[in-house]
Amino acid sequence: MKKSLYNYILGIADNSLILGQRIGELCGHGPSLETDIACTNISLDLLGQVRSYYQYAAKIAGDGRTEDDIAMLRKEREYVNVLLVEQPNTDFAYTMARHFLFDEYHLLFLTELKKSKDMTLAAIATKCIKEVRYHQRFSSDWIRRLGDGTEESQNRMQAAIDDLWTYTDELFHQTDADKAMVSEGIGVDVTKLKNAYYEKVNTVLEESTLTIPESKYFQKGGKMGIHTEHMGFLLAELQYMQRTYPNMEW
Amino acid sequence: MKKSLYNYILGIADNSLILGQRIGELCGHGPSLETDIACTNISLDLLGQVRSYYQYAAKIAGDGRTEDDIAMLRKEREYVNVLLVEQPNTDFAYTMARHFLFDEYHLLFLTELKKSKDMTLAAIATKCIKEVRYHQRFSSDWIRRLGDGTEESQNRMQAAIDDLWTYTDELFHQTDADKAMVSEGIGVDVTKLKNAYYEKVNTVLEESTLTIPESKYFQKGGKMGIHTEHMGFLLAELQYMQRTYPNMEW
Repeated sequence: MKKSLYNYILGIADNSLILGQRIGELCGHGPSLETDIACTNISLDLLGQVRSYYQYAAKIAGDGRTEDDIAMLRKEREYVNVLLVEQPNTDFAYTMARHFLFDEYHLLFLTELKKSKDMTLAAIATKCIKEVRYHQRFSSDWIRRLGDGTEESQNRMQAAIDDLWTYTDELFHQTDADKAMVSEGIGVDVTKLKNAYYEKVNTVLEESTLTIPESKYFQKGGKMGIHTEHMGFLLAELQYMQRTYPNMEW
Repeated sequence: MKKSLYNYILGIADNSLILGQRIGELCGHGPSLETDIACTNISLDLLGQVRSYYQYAAKIAGDGRTEDDIAMLRKEREYVNVLLVEQPNTDFAYTMARHFLFDEYHLLFLTELKKSKDMTLAAIATKCIKEVRYHQRFSSDWIRRLGDGTEESQNRMQAAIDDLWTYTDELFHQTDADKAMVSEGIGVDVTKLKNAYYEKVNTVLEESTLTIPESKYFQKGGKMGIHTEHMGFLLAELQYMQRTYPNMEW
């Protein structure tokens, strides 16, 4: 039970950590000042959220590891985020498409997590969902602006959606920790979010005059620690300070 | 004397290490299969050369540190490579321009280092110079092909040369270790290489129908450990394996 809860929390928090790191890479590189600040704020929201999760995970582990150890000092195979969030910031269309495809899931997920029997998780979800509503508004607005924009912006957004689509199915795969926590009334049954997710996503794509991809093949692996080639490079940057200056403090 | 010799060796080896890492990043991403393999081989040449230097440095230090410790576990400020070699692989023109601007220096430098009173350094230089002659042929060929190529390739190569030119002057700055080793007959007086360098470089640029930049302002700092923003990201990747799996062996 303790081990399952710990793993369950990582399964939630790692998504936000890795997405936060990715979007944070753009700090100072956004296409406009306002967008740059928005992206950096979203990154800070996500990293703030993961602090709550990892602090709770550290307490459950009870072996002296801190939130920083859990966030920064695991090996690649020990991170269980979905593949979607580790995909690179290829261009601004990719960056927003990746965020949008996660945000729609994230909102549905947190709405259910608020009902968790675990009071700590329910409280974190209640706090996070306000931020994630803003993320979803921001990213879906950009899907519409670029999708229903110029020929160039539409082509780029369509390419991003087409490429990233293959990573969406994994969001609804159940891990062992998921199953254990669902049966305890603590975890969210992600399989039940799938229909609502594609309905919401498809509505935005249609409003954006984009074509809904018809992929029959989906990628998976992240939830089991099997990552794409981008993950090692991301971790190299994420972990650099902690590894180079062990036990550093600001 | 021992400390100066140690620092002097790092001043040579760090250039090859960082340039080797940079060109190695392209492994699998070259513009054609042959070029890809050539770049990767050049990277391996450079990393092979640094092994000889760092092994010698480790022997001189005599404090139990190995070549790997010296290569991989220093802090950013302790790397004393010139700024030129840490500049990113912006495009293939940049990659070749950076290499060419270093290769011409490297050849002149090793030609002098062969005459060092330090038999180990002289022997390493004798071995390295054969490889570096090939590097210079490869990179200068690309300067000519792209410079005297299409309008697009010429524009890109000119932009690369213009941007990187500002990093060439530092090659001829003397450090304290340089001065100490020159006075011992061990080190190369780099100030004396400057005229020959610009003569050789300018000849190739003219053959390539490129304009010789007239920069009056030059960057410096690398030789004193003050690096550009790119260096931290490079080291994050370079050091990842050693930092994540301390004392690892293949």
